[in-house]
Amino acid sequence: MSAIRVPVVEKIFNANDQIAHQNRHLMNQNDVFAINIMASPGAGKTSFILQTIKHLQADFKIGVIEGDTAAVTIDSDKVVAAGMPAVQINTGGECHLDATMVSEALTRLPLAELDLVIVENVGNLICPAAFDLGTSINLLIASVPEGDDKPYKYPNIYRGLEVLIINKTDLQPYVQFDMDYFTRGVQLLNPGLTTFPVSCRTGEGIMPWIDWLKAEILRSRQG
Amino acid sequence: MSAIRVPVVEKIFNANDQIAHQNRHLMNQNDVFAINIMASPGAGKTSFILQTIKHLQADFKIGVIEGDTAAVTIDSDKVVAAGMPAVQINTGGECHLDATMVSEALTRLPLAELDLVIVENVGNLICPAAFDLGTSINLLIASVPEGDDKPYKYPNIYRGLEVLIINKTDLQPYVQFDMDYFTRGVQLLNPGLTTFPVSCRTGEGIMPWIDWLKAEILRSRQG
Repeated sequence: MSAIRVPVVEKIFNANDQIAHQNRHLMNQNDVFAINIMASPGAGKTSFILQTIKHLQADFKIGVIEGDTAAVTIDSDKVVAAGMPAVQINTGGECHLDATMVSEALTRLPLAELDLVIVENVGNLICPAAFDLGTSINLLIASVPEGDDKPYKYPNIYRGLEVLIINKTDLQPYVQFDMDYFTRGVQLLNPGLTTFPVSCRTGEGIMPWIDWLKAEILRSRQG
Repeated sequence: MSAIRVPVVEKIFNANDQIAHQNRHLMNQNDVFAINIMASPGAGKTSFILQTIKHLQADFKIGVIEGDTAAVTIDSDKVVAAGMPAVQINTGGECHLDATMVSEALTRLPLAELDLVIVENVGNLICPAAFDLGTSINLLIASVPEGDDKPYKYPNIYRGLEVLIINKTDLQPYVQFDMDYFTRGVQLLNPGLTTFPVSCRTGEGIMPWIDWLKAEILRSRQG
């Protein structure tokens, strides 16, 4: 099986990286900061996006690209209800977004008017790790009830991150989650990784993330 | 991209189904009942397997096949600690097990001595849905903190199931999870699906699953 697949996969990766480069260039030209948000199913990607929009929308114009494997609009409906332009990508069963899908979605957003594009990747800790989308940063949302062993089990996705969010900290009293063990695993793979523990449900811990993101958006314009 | 990939994927599926058929035949010959356990990362696959072993090991001999994308033995170590023969499959980054991987793992288990083989698939709600492994049943573990919208977002995996476990019911007071909405989604995709709400942490709800499984194992020998 691998003898058949490897050449195809290499071709896809090369093509993907070229399109990712174009996406990055297009967003730089428009002074748009972009975030690729990855996570397991149910780690809280949409809640995190809604919290981020809530705290940023007074200062920044935000567009959202929603990736789903099926033709459902549950997440994009929530974003539209929050007053933001949202583009839905149905991957047709594919387990990740790729740069071409994002490139097509970008043509449907008013880039010249936006400051920030948030891309919600498909819920998956494996496939999305292999595809650069051309965003400014890659962000993973881990969640406390998923367990503290995820960095050890899904190392590739942790290696390629600029930011880690640890969500659902409000559930820590009710589950077994050893923060030291989790953090040791992360540090082995990605030393010094910028990390924000948050609860999207209660709002606790969101503001340090918002302050960091605001500073990064402003800094990227001077770069 | 799809123009390149489709023929390769079809070849893989055909080959996979042939090997799955061979796996099923081999296990039938040895009077072995087999379960393919799928779930998101952190839904509680290993805890569920350990609970199942605990309640069945007096009556049945059990072997476990542990699928992981990375070379980690966290899960298989726990199974071995429970006194069961366990075989680890490292998929080398692949997002699912396939029938060939399981076929190789089966050669390393004492099939003639076993009653039950439990296969722990890779933590993922997308890719594993497409690959028959040759087990007697496909089982999905959903978990309450993942949220009630998962059947709507990942319909393919729900369509191919014989059993659904809803784990972490002990967390229901602390999260937003509308059981009616979840169940309606499941029923649309897989009417009448055999479902067991459980808490692997507290043990609540495990016995109805164990009783059902015992009956199925015995019934399969008469079939």
